[in-house]
Amino acid sequence: MARPPADPEALFQAARNGDRAATARLLSLIERGGDPARVVGRLAYPMSGDGYTVGLTGAPGAGKSTLTSATIGHLRSLGLEVAVLAIDPSSPFTGGAILGDRVRMQDHATDPGVFIRSMATRGHLGGLSLATPEAVRLLDALGRRWILVETVGVGQVEVEVAGKADTTVVVVNPGWGDSVQANKAGLMEIADVFVINKADRKGVEETRRDLEQMLDLSDLPHDAWRPPIVATVGNTGQGVPELWDAVGAHRQFAEQSGLLVERRNFRAAEELREIVANRLRERARELCTGERWDEVTNDVVGHRVDPWSAADEMLAPVEA
Amino acid sequence: MARPPADPEALFQAARNGDRAATARLLSLIERGGDPARVVGRLAYPMSGDGYTVGLTGAPGAGKSTLTSATIGHLRSLGLEVAVLAIDPSSPFTGGAILGDRVRMQDHATDPGVFIRSMATRGHLGGLSLATPEAVRLLDALGRRWILVETVGVGQVEVEVAGKADTTVVVVNPGWGDSVQANKAGLMEIADVFVINKADRKGVEETRRDLEQMLDLSDLPHDAWRPPIVATVGNTGQGVPELWDAVGAHRQFAEQSGLLVERRNFRAAEELREIVANRLRERARELCTGERWDEVTNDVVGHRVDPWSAADEMLAPVEA
Repeated sequence: MARPPADPEALFQAARNGDRAATARLLSLIERGGDPARVVGRLAYPMSGDGYTVGLTGAPGAGKSTLTSATIGHLRSLGLEVAVLAIDPSSPFTGGAILGDRVRMQDHATDPGVFIRSMATRGHLGGLSLATPEAVRLLDALGRRWILVETVGVGQVEVEVAGKADTTVVVVNPGWGDSVQANKAGLMEIADVFVINKADRKGVEETRRDLEQMLDLSDLPHDAWRPPIVATVGNTGQGVPELWDAVGAHRQFAEQSGLLVERRNFRAAEELREIVANRLRERARELCTGERWDEVTNDVVGHRVDPWSAADEMLAPVEA
Repeated sequence: MARPPADPEALFQAARNGDRAATARLLSLIERGGDPARVVGRLAYPMSGDGYTVGLTGAPGAGKSTLTSATIGHLRSLGLEVAVLAIDPSSPFTGGAILGDRVRMQDHATDPGVFIRSMATRGHLGGLSLATPEAVRLLDALGRRWILVETVGVGQVEVEVAGKADTTVVVVNPGWGDSVQANKAGLMEIADVFVINKADRKGVEETRRDLEQMLDLSDLPHDAWRPPIVATVGNTGQGVPELWDAVGAHRQFAEQSGLLVERRNFRAAEELREIVANRLRERARELCTGERWDEVTNDVVGHRVDPWSAADEMLAPVEA
């Protein structure tokens, strides 16, 4: 049976009252993009700002989802509630299903203090780089105080998405050097905390030295945050309290130093710029189609009008 | 001594009268982009359309400039005049200097029937993908009937630039398979003629079989052009007449089948679309700056305005 069309405002009220299915459907609207996503965004915006976002990223196979699951367990043991967004730009699945390898996360599926949702990009014009902050903002507006954003992969998009968190945790493994050589610089740039996960394997100390050396070389100003390096074993939960302490220390530093405000301001400006650019792209698509466009193109092809004059004509409505 | 500012119209008249220095300066204006480039484009457009463009592309080291030089020699022996644009997107040099490795081309430097010019992208907003067709159009308007466009490299940009020619020659070497694996598909898509250059080396027949097999697999319609494969030795000129015959055969096919008109129409529409998109990007940059932008961004950061409403406000001037 088809579900009735979603009314974003009704869903938002239901979600505010704790209806998890309504929350899931709102996230689907955001994922799909378009006008309904904008309505959700407008509802969430004024109520957001109190949540804190922790990004987790690293190469596929680094054990991020096991580590995330262990982190959820730790947060629950501290009596904290948590929402998790698992972002997979390369995934073909859609509609908020739990990823196949997220079996461990299912441990928390029935816990009302935990909300887990996978996201893929569907119709959203700005892709995950716009959909993710919107999803975070919704969860924030719905009262979630800790929001974990886990991204799979170390490509530019994943790094960008992960780097939009308030605190970013980069997950590596012993001997990571070879596998992520390509984007080491990108990861160094966004890392607030390094985790050497699967630390029951060989090579932890070499990896730690490797990271320390890279941090030394990156020539941080003396008053800057130097990312701590924590060793964990996701499977057993070993090191997870230390990881969470490191996140807490970074949060404290960011709040006291003004870094958090600075980052959020920067992100807001970036997002606005992206929305403006996307809107203009939409506008360009509208302009470069239809009967008038065909006529003008024919004039250019027939050498009756040069392409700059033709562009002037097509752009007249937006160059007022 | 600084040269006086270039007046595009005066330069265009001088170039029409055969002044090669004026032609070179017009090409510099196109390379630099902006309003003077547009003036040149508007002058050239109505006078262009009779020139024929041959693109040459292939991996670095495939011997394209030696082959180009040999082709120039062949054209001159047939009494034809020719203009050559050598496009190097990765080159740091600017201002129309001859590339260092183009020594062989210097053979033709004093021949009035030959015009050779290297181009790099400087300020041109649309980069080489817009500057190259403008440069071709200028040479066409100045009466050049054959225009060779040589691009260095096999990246996406080079393939795009080369593919905008009327006939595209893809240069490979014996045993090419390994070196250009990454972009074989792109090259297959644009090739109208394949050249196996350096055919005095081993492996010509294997390479020919490799190419034939790829053509078989590409499942061309029965009435489509099937790219012929020519073997050349650029150093000695061996095979160059056959290469030129293959280009001529493709031209005849393209003219008679309607392919040429179709390609030129497609290119004109593409170019117009690119100009429109670039203009909108410029507009976006203008909008996302200045005092009003700072105010709106502050409102978003302060959660007084949501980013969509802020974007609406910034875009009001272009959404009339």
